[in-house]
Amino acid sequence: MTQAGTAEVPKVTLYSYFRSSCAWRVRLGLLLKGMSRIPYEYKAINILKGEQFTDEFTKLNPLQLVPVLEIDDVKLVDSIAILQYLEERFPDKRPLLPKDLVQRAHIHQVVFLIASNIQPLQNTQILPVIEAKLGKEERLKWAQYSIAKGFSALERILEKTAGKYCFGDMVTLADVVLSPQLANAIRFQLDMAPYPTIRQVGQALNELPEVKASAPANQPDAPNL
Amino acid sequence: MTQAGTAEVPKVTLYSYFRSSCAWRVRLGLLLKGMSRIPYEYKAINILKGEQFTDEFTKLNPLQLVPVLEIDDVKLVDSIAILQYLEERFPDKRPLLPKDLVQRAHIHQVVFLIASNIQPLQNTQILPVIEAKLGKEERLKWAQYSIAKGFSALERILEKTAGKYCFGDMVTLADVVLSPQLANAIRFQLDMAPYPTIRQVGQALNELPEVKASAPANQPDAPNL
Repeated sequence: MTQAGTAEVPKVTLYSYFRSSCAWRVRLGLLLKGMSRIPYEYKAINILKGEQFTDEFTKLNPLQLVPVLEIDDVKLVDSIAILQYLEERFPDKRPLLPKDLVQRAHIHQVVFLIASNIQPLQNTQILPVIEAKLGKEERLKWAQYSIAKGFSALERILEKTAGKYCFGDMVTLADVVLSPQLANAIRFQLDMAPYPTIRQVGQALNELPEVKASAPANQPDAPNL
Repeated sequence: MTQAGTAEVPKVTLYSYFRSSCAWRVRLGLLLKGMSRIPYEYKAINILKGEQFTDEFTKLNPLQLVPVLEIDDVKLVDSIAILQYLEERFPDKRPLLPKDLVQRAHIHQVVFLIASNIQPLQNTQILPVIEAKLGKEERLKWAQYSIAKGFSALERILEKTAGKYCFGDMVTLADVVLSPQLANAIRFQLDMAPYPTIRQVGQALNELPEVKASAPANQPDAPNL
């Protein structure tokens, strides 16, 4: 049985694609949990070339998605399941959740608002389907609509909870999930004017060295532009 | 601060819609966690009539979705955040997660496979959009395709982990989320032949009194047919 707080330094391998927002969540979580001093191995899976569909990768993750994390002999898929595992296994390394149960639930709400209500509607699985059925212009509109709908609700929540970050001045799992989603919003040219709180939190997050180091442009498989 | 294992009996109100699979997750979770002896108050929100869009309800949940749970003076939205809160607050009342961290992560993977990769693509927010853009026949095809894609991956996972339920013979959060998703699959007339393990687990789950009591047909707002 793996116990919380196991002391030895684990061997970590991350299967990632530089632009995947779900892989970014895990890259950011690893850095925030202090893994920057444990150089993890980075294995690039090129989603646009379909490398996630090989038999070898499908054995790793039947859902054919990045990220996959190997930590010692444990293999984990799904970004949120991975983040929760890291939090439970290394609770003392920069906690990303407070101890109060209600505060934890409020943070989880924001995590799932993004992970279940925004991201799945504008990811690399769904957008090609939308484009094939409705055309290229509808693809962008669809992505913008999906993010705007979720951000409207998120803005109303964060108005009440935000300090420097989503919940006061502590970096939490909500911020880990928000940062990549914000980058998607900007990539899809969403008008951010209606979301001043989200913008402000996003600016603070962008100044964190862990956010910079985990950003798509700074990954080994990012193209040299 | 709310502590785990608080002894007093809480006052519980659930805002629900009988057919909502996310509300069903919480109804089932409440019953499994022993709330059957604490008669919770059921407030019906008719999604088809748009009762989730009123100002009063939007104050409760800016995302304009059921379920919302009030437990004493705490208000929680998002089915998975609610289930995690109940698990953390009442850890000794029929645990729905084991103590081993890796096993917990594997269960979370199945929870999020359904909650982030299947349900959002076939829920009452997205299907009307698909129907408006592509027609009624595409609506059914879309729902079937979304569930089938997720179930193919889920079948490969459960082949290795299932006993009577998703993970051995313990009822876990994975089962709490699977049960309503299976009912959706049947409602959308999905051919279940390719998923023998999912079917078998589903049959075992359907025999649980808590699954029966939380099913849509047995809710106060279900129509008399």
